[in-house]
Parts: sequence; structure tokens; C-alpha cells
Amino acid sequence: MSVRAVVLPAPNSAPIIREFEDPILEDGAVLLETIASEVCGTDVHLLHGHLSGVPYPIIPGHVSVGRVLQVKGMVRDVEGEAIVAGEIVTFLDVHRTCGHCWYCQIAKASTRCPERRVYGITYSSNEGLLGGWSERILLLPSVHIVKLPPALPPDVFMAGGCGLPTALHAVQRGDVTFGDTVVVQGAGPVGLCSAVLAQLQGASKIIVIGGPPQRLAIARALGADLTIDIAEHGPDERLRIVRDLTHGRGADITIEATGVPSAVAEGLRLTRDAGTLVVVGQYTDHGAVSINPHLELNRPHLQIRGCWGSDLGHLYRAVNTLARHAERFPWRSMINGRYTLEQADQALLAAERQESIKALILPNGPLI
Amino acid sequence: MSVRAVVLPAPNSAPIIREFEDPILEDGAVLLETIASEVCGTDVHLLHGHLSGVPYPIIPGHVSVGRVLQVKGMVRDVEGEAIVAGEIVTFLDVHRTCGHCWYCQIAKASTRCPERRVYGITYSSNEGLLGGWSERILLLPSVHIVKLPPALPPDVFMAGGCGLPTALHAVQRGDVTFGDTVVVQGAGPVGLCSAVLAQLQGASKIIVIGGPPQRLAIARALGADLTIDIAEHGPDERLRIVRDLTHGRGADITIEATGVPSAVAEGLRLTRDAGTLVVVGQYTDHGAVSINPHLELNRPHLQIRGCWGSDLGHLYRAVNTLARHAERFPWRSMINGRYTLEQADQALLAAERQESIKALILPNGPLI
Amino acid sequence: MSVRAVVLPAPNSAPIIREFEDPILEDGAVLLETIASEVCGTDVHLLHGHLSGVPYPIIPGHVSVGRVLQVKGMVRDVEGEAIVAGEIVTFLDVHRTCGHCWYCQIAKASTRCPERRVYGITYSSNEGLLGGWSERILLLPSVHIVKLPPALPPDVFMAGGCGLPTALHAVQRGDVTFGDTVVVQGAGPVGLCSAVLAQLQGASKIIVIGGPPQRLAIARALGADLTIDIAEHGPDERLRIVRDLTHGRGADITIEATGVPSAVAEGLRLTRDAGTLVVVGQYTDHGAVSINPHLELNRPHLQIRGCWGSDLGHLYRAVNTLARHAERFPWRSMINGRYTLEQADQALLAAERQESIKALILPNGPLI
Amino acid sequence: MSVRAVVLPAPNSAPIIREFEDPILEDGAVLLETIASEVCGTDVHLLHGHLSGVPYPIIPGHVSVGRVLQVKGMVRDVEGEAIVAGEIVTFLDVHRTCGHCWYCQIAKASTRCPERRVYGITYSSNEGLLGGWSERILLLPSVHIVKLPPALPPDVFMAGGCGLPTALHAVQRGDVTFGDTVVVQGAGPVGLCSAVLAQLQGASKIIVIGGPPQRLAIARALGADLTIDIAEHGPDERLRIVRDLTHGRGADITIEATGVPSAVAEGLRLTRDAGTLVVVGQYTDHGAVSINPHLELNRPHLQIRGCWGSDLGHLYRAVNTLARHAERFPWRSMINGRYTLEQADQALLAAERQESIKALILPNGPLI
Repeated sequence: MSVRAVVLPAPNSAPIIREFEDPILEDGAVLLETIASEVCGTDVHLLHGHLSGVPYPIIPGHVSVGRVLQVKGMVRDVEGEAIVAGEIVTFLDVHRTCGHCWYCQIAKASTRCPERRVYGITYSSNEGLLGGWSERILLLPSVHIVKLPPALPPDVFMAGGCGLPTALHAVQRGDVTFGDTVVVQGAGPVGLCSAVLAQLQGASKIIVIGGPPQRLAIARALGADLTIDIAEHGPDERLRIVRDLTHGRGADITIEATGVPSAVAEGLRLTRDAGTLVVVGQYTDHGAVSINPHLELNRPHLQIRGCWGSDLGHLYRAVNTLARHAERFPWRSMINGRYTLEQADQALLAAERQESIKALILPNGPLI
Repeated sequence: MSVRAVVLPAPNSAPIIREFEDPILEDGAVLLETIASEVCGTDVHLLHGHLSGVPYPIIPGHVSVGRVLQVKGMVRDVEGEAIVAGEIVTFLDVHRTCGHCWYCQIAKASTRCPERRVYGITYSSNEGLLGGWSERILLLPSVHIVKLPPALPPDVFMAGGCGLPTALHAVQRGDVTFGDTVVVQGAGPVGLCSAVLAQLQGASKIIVIGGPPQRLAIARALGADLTIDIAEHGPDERLRIVRDLTHGRGADITIEATGVPSAVAEGLRLTRDAGTLVVVGQYTDHGAVSINPHLELNRPHLQIRGCWGSDLGHLYRAVNTLARHAERFPWRSMINGRYTLEQADQALLAAERQESIKALILPNGPLI
Repeated sequence: MSVRAVVLPAPNSAPIIREFEDPILEDGAVLLETIASEVCGTDVHLLHGHLSGVPYPIIPGHVSVGRVLQVKGMVRDVEGEAIVAGEIVTFLDVHRTCGHCWYCQIAKASTRCPERRVYGITYSSNEGLLGGWSERILLLPSVHIVKLPPALPPDVFMAGGCGLPTALHAVQRGDVTFGDTVVVQGAGPVGLCSAVLAQLQGASKIIVIGGPPQRLAIARALGADLTIDIAEHGPDERLRIVRDLTHGRGADITIEATGVPSAVAEGLRLTRDAGTLVVVGQYTDHGAVSINPHLELNRPHLQIRGCWGSDLGHLYRAVNTLARHAERFPWRSMINGRYTLEQADQALLAAERQESIKALILPNGPLI
Repeated sequence: MSVRAVVLPAPNSAPIIREFEDPILEDGAVLLETIASEVCGTDVHLLHGHLSGVPYPIIPGHVSVGRVLQVKGMVRDVEGEAIVAGEIVTFLDVHRTCGHCWYCQIAKASTRCPERRVYGITYSSNEGLLGGWSERILLLPSVHIVKLPPALPPDVFMAGGCGLPTALHAVQRGDVTFGDTVVVQGAGPVGLCSAVLAQLQGASKIIVIGGPPQRLAIARALGADLTIDIAEHGPDERLRIVRDLTHGRGADITIEATGVPSAVAEGLRLTRDAGTLVVVGQYTDHGAVSINPHLELNRPHLQIRGCWGSDLGHLYRAVNTLARHAERFPWRSMINGRYTLEQADQALLAAERQESIKALILPNGPLI
């Protein structure tokens, strides 16, 4: 039997459908029937060749959920439980973190391991079905697999998608605690997930700054106390609003999730003295920003924490958090696009135009 | 005008009603009309003289809420806002933390400051209306005052009472995060509040071990995923249940809130390797417990964190947390006794018999 | 008897000598005979009116050591020991940290308390002998006093001066640990003290970047493994040298102690992925700097920590650290200027020209 | 050519010499000529069969240093540098930490990974030359290798031995900082190394409690400010001495490194309120100890931190720390026994009688 998958042949080439042989599994490998795979901003960057080190042709799709078709040998999830055919699972897109290099072993900063490979991004389609926009996904030996708990429907998991572990990492790195005021800059998937997770870490007040209005409406539905539309309010006014809500001080923690360099400078100003700004949105290079280190960093005793990627701990905690709160928040409101493999070009276009918040590729038909 | 208050004249003497002169305020002082004051286990200890350093006669009542009657001079809350007559406020029962001693300045452990005095516990009624079981409460200069936000009804605040800041301190000291499994030992006010706050810090699974059944029903209503009745299940079975729910590992964090020394040893066994046991329930001396430091502490790489008292930060964060979640949790279910000043003896009896979870003294009539 | 002191009458006016009445002590106050007081860059800023909120005329001198002449009532040091006439003591220049505001109580960031007053900076000479360039210093009630241990000669303490607690705060904020490589930017008092303290926190490799050569020689005498003279090596070369010494990674922790905004951008590049840059040197406003948040912050998962001021804990720990290591390091090599009260103008000139690293005012004659 | 090694054939059987075939290396393996291997208390436990899961017959010797004889393929150290024949290296005795289980990935507590195997302890001699009491040691693929820097002579490294990474882990877990008073319980290798490392982390006062006098003399030579001989001073007197030196408070951090359960209870009493007791010495089961959780844990707001094993980070940091301070401390004074392979029985006897602090097996003749 053959397997159909979307392939990006080269930078700035339209996605095409290709047929692959059904893979033969080596010991420790698992084959999934794809239920859904994510379309996110990264895929737009892939389409346009904005990321370095991408071995085109590739099958996109880094965060996915699937049903286990076949297991070769004994394969266990992170809990030590055997993976069994028929189960619904996800997996960490990051693979081959080496566990031996200085970053893995000494810095304990595995997201900076130079050996890591990423499903849907840094694997070539010549190496196999190693991306999610495919009817089937091949999980190589040592891929970290996480079973979806019964309380967690696949579409709720996908609503979080790659934004949720990223946001979880950011919120943890912000050391949010009870009673804090958290400002989230940006209303994309990472921003919206951060707005939820900040609440779940104990924050009392969540302010989301971004746009457009539909996304801000979702932010409010997800529990944000206040949203500020950047199309309506300029930086000075935004600062004034945040200060007015915090007795003149600013946010305890600000989470930058915009991708726009100037947001970092604004984030510093939005944050109170001795507070924390987490910078998680600067995924690609959009240039520099000017800051005043005396006024904005040293005297206010502020800290800025860059936050890159996520590891299995973030994914595992995201899954468990989603499972507990699957019903409490309208997660599915973040999904506003569903596409077949053949519609991948439309999915990319909608993502590029930021029409979609979160879009899904459904290679084997609609979610039930 | 005179003020009526409950006084404990001496250890093991019945509470009596005394009349006091309306106080003359020094600059920086505030006079409250009491709305409600708490009855808790500490008051039973005070009745029986179990605590050292108590300057009988005393007016009990350490956590209270009241309406501002009078302010002498300019008095500000912790936000820097002026206190105005008519506002509804609470205050930190701990007063005169010195800010100069080694514990305040070097250890940054203000709950171990030897100068601290506590409303309702270590102030004599000869020194003034410095306890909550009174029609009026005198807030001396430098008492830390916190206004109740509009979203926080006084009875919801009192439902948390002194247990909530204590639990907040414990949950923070446990470093609970997303996806954690938290076992709470004890279903009294601190245990129940810990069960709520662990959720609000991101835990995915909350297991409360205690009794009796009514309290466990409240625990479940407050969001506990599972309760284990100690009258039905012995220690071995409790351990088995917890391990079954955690892939054999035990809790990530266990919060001991029982007052029973043997719970500390059980808590160690209930906690996974490299996990944390917070000991917050051993408020008075009930003797020793035996532990095996190799098997239960060193080899499992566990940590135990004693947790004593709370400071203004804990109270302030508790108030803001309650305000945000006032409607989400059935806080009021923790209040099951309401008494007039004259009924103080009954309130103490109910507390001693553990019939009440949280009882209130309402010196000026029922809450509206 | 009258007391002679240096007074800065107004911004950009030369220092003059004034005579003051010997103060009458209120209860809790202490009078010191000044042994030595520091001249530092802050005093040059004071001379030129660069700091806001300075109530001229002032007596400069914020870090000082003196002999106790008189104690009114019982006054205790932070250990709880009585202060006795004849003892040699120092004190925290920061006074009146309020212990009540949001920053003191909730953020636990006392160096951001708006009520704080500073000896030698924000006290007017009209308020008393509240600066160190005076024969006598009046310690008001509640000033935090620290006795110099017998193992700590006054000139060794003064060699550390205000730079040592500042550096101690910075090194703590950098979370330096065993085996780390620490780059220190700047060879002034804070930089030199950071180079010593990083070693004492366990760092294995210390690289100091700065100048001029005499200061770098002192850095090496204080234990720096390598110094890089900025007059000889440009930014690219400095980066190359640091990378060569760290297997291409960069410093684990970089401590910026220069006062030059561009050093912040360079510091980011000098720091390894997932490392920490502490910004402690931007004491006054010298403008902005441009950084690339993707390349220098987000992707490398770096953190930047602003570090402002110091509190009693830092001073106390600095004194105990100096006492233990008084003989091990050539602390006194940091003092290269000693002046009488009458020579205060020369002291300021030498500080302005950066001829002195650390200069002392000796109001009562030379140190024995 | 054949290789001679010491083998423990079974519990309570005398060590014997066996000859092995020179191993054939698989890709990624390294063969060492052994320079020295350690004899420590663990080996005495192995002799008597006190540890579970040991696959006798075994070649003892878990911490060793050797010269690279042969490298198969490209093998890199943790810095990413190629391993070259002739270099002097050590390696982490812990091997096969899986990097996939819940403890590795979620708890980030790799010393609790159930897959880990340990050279000299849990490898059978049937599996190869996987212990240090052998002329040659086979480093299997993925063993973590660390090169000794030129500044670190092999015998200085061996003086630290396995005690140094263990002590480094313990001191890090104690969060020692500038000015702290650290009490170390025990004057064996871990205790002595802790006494040095506490200084290097900034502590101002180090008190070692233990015996016999020769070991305490070494403690003082290594920088301990005071030693207390347990043969001379009972527990009450020891407590009094520590309190007298700390203004009545007790140690900021106590490090238990004794193996005696009662030391844990004494350690709690020796530690100040809000301080930390690290329990690292309870390597085997010697029974239980009684503690009072109110008086000794909850009210004093103390924490106890169990500390198990060490990982590559601890070894790497230990090596770098030793290299920097090789000359400053008399490390070699901890070595008081040197044995040939044939004298292994004497080495074990001396270790059992605690005559040796640190003994070395020198399979290829004396250190030069």
C-alpha cells in the first residue's frame, strides 16, 4: 500500500502531493495513522525558505496526533507503559537530542542541543514519513511518545498544538505565582495559550495586547480579564492602561509572543520594577530594537528571559494540563481552519494572511 | 460608647463578655467595625493554654474582616491607597515584625522574627481591642491593611480565613507546577485550601487523604480528583491507591496538613523520588515520629520543607486569588458555623469537637 | 565642640568645609568618629548634579567606617549584640526602607522602595551629620549597623567599599556555581570585586575585560585568569578570545560593570546560550543600545538580569566574606588615593579622571 | 596480551586476581591503561554483599583515571573534543542513564533513572573490563569521558575521588552562599570535600564534626575553621559549641555525611530556623531515627534535602574546580593508602577499619 503526503519540494515552491512506500519498521519504531497535524507560522517560514538548515524536500507538520497502526518490538511511553496498536498518541517533534553534549549534560539546556532534529522541519522526505502532513507518520526508535488521556479529545490537543508547550515553557520561565498580573503581548497561538496557562499558574489578572478583534474575543473567552487592541491604542496608551490597572507599577510578568522586535522594548516598559519579561515570540530575525539599559533594565532591577523551544517535559505537562481542563476552556475556538492534504496550499495561505489562528491538516478525513 | 468583646481570662477558663471603652486613636491608627472573625483550632489551643507566651486575658480572633469606622491621619494600604471610612478591609494579624533582626534582614524569614506580635493571640486585652471577637478592632499604626476587592464578598474571604494564606505559603514552598500530582494529607481548612490552590498552581491531579466524609465531599466539590477516607483505608492501602494513580511513583508534591506526627512519615512514603513533602500541619507538639533516612530521604533524593506562618505577601496574594475565583469554587461550603459574641463558648466547643470546619464570630449581627 | 565636614553646596559648586554643632543624640542614635569614608563615582555625579532628588547642600560619603563615640539607649547590631563605645563599625548607607510598601512587602525588592534615603546622597546637611566626609557621623535610630570583625582591618573593608556589596548582589543574581566561566566587563571597583567574588562562588575561570593596564594588573593580582585590555582589542577580538577559552560557547555568566550602554550588547554576545548576563553597571543614563532579540536573546535562550543597589544582607555578607579572606587577596591594592577633608576637591578630581580606583577621605588623620 | 584485574567472586569471598583477554573495541569504545582507581566505603559494602542488584563476579573500582590506549572511531568528550591516544582522562562511572524514562525526562532527576549501570558496581566481570581495579578499563560507547586539564595531576583528582562530585552535589543542593556558616557532619571523603567546597561557594565559617583526630587535622588543613571531635564532645556540647559560634542560631546549612541515622536528628538541631539540612551520608540502611516534626521541622521552618548520587555535571564541575584549586588545598593529604592489585584485600581491610580516608589501587605501578 502506498502513503500520500504533502511535500514542500524547495523554498518558494508550491506544496505537492507525493506517494511513498509504506515503511518497513525497524525495531523500536511505531507507525501512526495521522488524525491531525498542525499548520502554524513555522510552516509559512518553511514555504518561503526563511529557516536555515532545512533539507528540502520535506513533509511539513511538526505537531500531530495519530492512531497507532503498528509497533515493532516493545516500545514504551514516558510513563513506562507499552505502546499498543489502536491507541491515540502524540510525540515530541524534537528528536535525537543527544544527551551527551555540553548543552544536554552541563547546561541542562536541551533545547540548545546541536544534534536535535525536528519532525516536519529538519528531516528530509527522503529519510521517510517524518512529518505530519501525511496519511501516516513513522516514529523512529527513541522518539518520545505521549498517549492522549481519555479525557483529552484529539482536537482539543491540537487546539493547543505547538503553541501550548511553548507557552508552558514561557509561563514557567516567568515564575508566575498567585495574585500576579500578567501581560501577554500577542494574540496568536502562543499568546492565547499563555493567557490560559498564566491563570492556571495562579495569576489574578491577565491582560492580552494584540489583535485583530476576533482573536481578542477568543482571548476573553479563554479568561483574559482585559484585551487591548493594538489597532486602537498606541504604545503610550497601552502603557497607561496597564499602569492604571496595576496601581501605576506595571505587570509582574510580561510574556512577549509577537515576533516583532519593538515589542521587546515595549515589554520592558510594561513590566514593573523587579519584574520579569519573557521573550518567546522572536522566532525569526526581524531586526534590532533599541533599549535604554539604565532606565529600562538596571535601575528597575528587571530581568529578561529568552525562551527557546520546548522539551518532553513541556509537552507531557501540556497534555496533562489540557486533559484536566479540556472542558473548562473553549480550546477549540482556537481552531478556525481544517484542510485535506490537497488543500495544503490554502492552509498555508490562510496562515500567511493570519486569517487562521490554528489550522489543521486532516489527512485521513474529518475528526469525528 | 462602649464596645463589647469576648475575653479569655486565663487558660481553661470559659470565655466571658467584657465591655471596653471606645478607643482613642493615635496617629496612623484605624478603627474597624467587625463584620466577621474566625474561630479556628488555634482558638481551642488558646482556651486550653497550649500555646506559650500568651498574655491572658486576651480577645481571641486573629483573622477578621471589618468596615472602617475611623482613620486617624493618613493611613495607606499596601498598594499605597488611602484607607477611607466605610471601606471593607482585612489586615495581617501578625504585627511588629521588626525589619531589623537577623531573621528579617539576613535570612529573609520574617515569620521567624522574634519581635512579631499577633492579633488575637499575643496581645493582651489590657493593651486594647486587639482581637477580632469584638464589636470593634483597633488597628495600631503600621498594621498591614488590605482592602477587599469588590469581587470578594466578606464571607468568601472568611471561608479562606487563616487557612488560605497558610496553604498558599505551603503550596508555593512545594513548587507545584503544571501537570503535577499533589497529595494533600488532611481535610481541615489548610488541607482544603491547599487542594484548591494546588489546582490554581497548575497541578493536574489532586488527592485528599482525610476525613470525615462530609469534609471529603467538600474537598471533591472544591476540585479534588479523589479523596481517601482514613477511616476506611489504612496507611498501606492509601499508599497503594496513590501509587496506582501515579504509575507506581507517588505524588510529585505532598502537603501535610494534619497535625499528627505519623503523617510526616506517611507523607515521605507517599511522595515520589526527587519529590517534595511540605510539612505545614505540625502547629503544636504532639511528639515524635520515626523515619528511615536511607530508605525515605537520602536514596529517594526527597526533600522535606517545613513551613511556618505567613506574611503580608501570602495574605495579599490570597485576597487577590480569592477575588478572581470567588465564583468558581464553593468557598462558602467551608463555613459551617456562625455565632454571636455570646455564643463564643459554643463556637469553641464545636471547633474542639471538629464539628466545624470553619466557624465565624459575627459580633455585629449576621452577614448580609 | 564643633565638627568639621565637607559640604557640596550645590551642583557644580566646589566642595567646602563647614563646621557643625556636635549633635545631641535622640534615643536609639549612635555617634561615630569617622575612620574613613569612600570617594566613588557617585560622588562625581553628585558634584555635577547628575542625580535627581539630591537635597543640596549635602555631606558626601555613603560608605564609611568609624569608631563608636556615643550610644544613646540600647542599640543593637543585626546579630542582636549591643553597640558599645569604642567598637569599630560600618552601617548600611540606605536608611528608612519602609517595610510597608508594595515593593518591600510583596515584591520583596527592597532596593526599589520609594521611601529609602541614603547617607551621603539623599540627606541634606541641614538634617545633620548624615554623610561620611565628616569628622563625625550621626547614625539615626534604625540605621542598620554592622560591627567589623577583629579579622577585618578598616582599610580592607574600605577597599571593598560600596563596590563589594554591589558586586555581591550581582554575583548572587548571576547564580554562579562550581566550574563556571565568568566574564566581567569593567575593571572599576564593582568589576574588580565581582572578579574576586565569582571565584569565591566557585567559578573556575575569570576573564576581566577593561582597562587601563594598572587596573588589569590588579585584576590579575586578585585572581583573574585573563584580562583583556579594551585599548588593545576591539569587540570582535574580545569575542574571539572569550570563545576560544570556552570551546566556542562564551561565558556561563557575564557581569556588566562598565556604565557604557554598548557593553550590554557586547555582553549578550559574550555569553553562551542559556547563560546569564547581569547588568549592574548602568548606574546613570548614557543613552540607548541596539540589540537583536531573535539572535541575541530568544534563540540563545539567554537571560539578562538588571541589578540595582544592595540591602543589609549584601553588606553583612560582604563584611563576613572580607573577614574570612582579608589576607588571601590583596584588597588594599584597590585603594590608591587617601585624602584629608581639605583635599576633597582633589579626591573628586582624581575620581573624575579615573586616576583613582578607590580613594578614601580620612577626616581624622591617617589610618594606623 | 592478557589483562590482570581484581575480581570479587561473590559476597564475602576474598578478592582474587583474574586474567582477561585484551578486549576488542566496538565503534565508539575507548580502552584505558589504568593509572589509579579508588577504594572507598562502597567497595567494603560490595565485599560483604550489602548492596542489592550486584551481578557478582565483579571488578570493583568505580572512580578511576587512566591513559588512553586506543580509541575506536571518533569519540568526543563533553566539550566536543576528540579523544586521542595518550591523553589522561576520567569518566563518569554511571553509564546508560536512559534519557527516556520519567525520571530522566520529566523529573529531571537522572540519578534516579532505573536503567543506570555503574562501573565497578553493577557490571559483571563477565561483561568485560568494566571496573577500575584492573590494568585496563574498557569504556563502552556513550560513556561520558572528561579529560584531566594539565593543571590537574591524576593523584589530586583521585584525592577527590567519588567523594568530590558527591560533595559538590550536596553543597549545591544546600544553596550555600556568601557569609554562610556551614556545619559538616562527618570527616570521611564526602565530609572533607564538603568542607572545602562550602568555602569555594562563599561560606565564611566551616565547622566539621567528626573524628578521629587525624581526620580532623586534615579538615583544618583543608580550611575548616573549627573541628569538633565526637569522641570528646557529646551531642549537647556539640550543639552548644555551634550555637555559641552563631549568635545562638545554629548553622545556615548543615551537610550530613556520616552514614549514622542519629546524625540526621542532630543535624536538624544544629541548623538554624529557616536553614537547610542536606542528607547525603545515608548511603545504606542503618535503621530509623526519631524526630519531632513540630519542634524540629515545622516551627523552625527548616528544610531537609536528601541528595543521591551525582551526574556528569557534578563530575565535570568537580574536575574544573580541582584544576583551579589544585595547589591551594592539600588535597593529597586525603590519600593515605596506595596498593597494588595483589594488595586489594589489604586495601579493603584498611577501608573497613576506617584506617584509610582515601586509598588507591595502582594497577600499573606507582604514580610518578
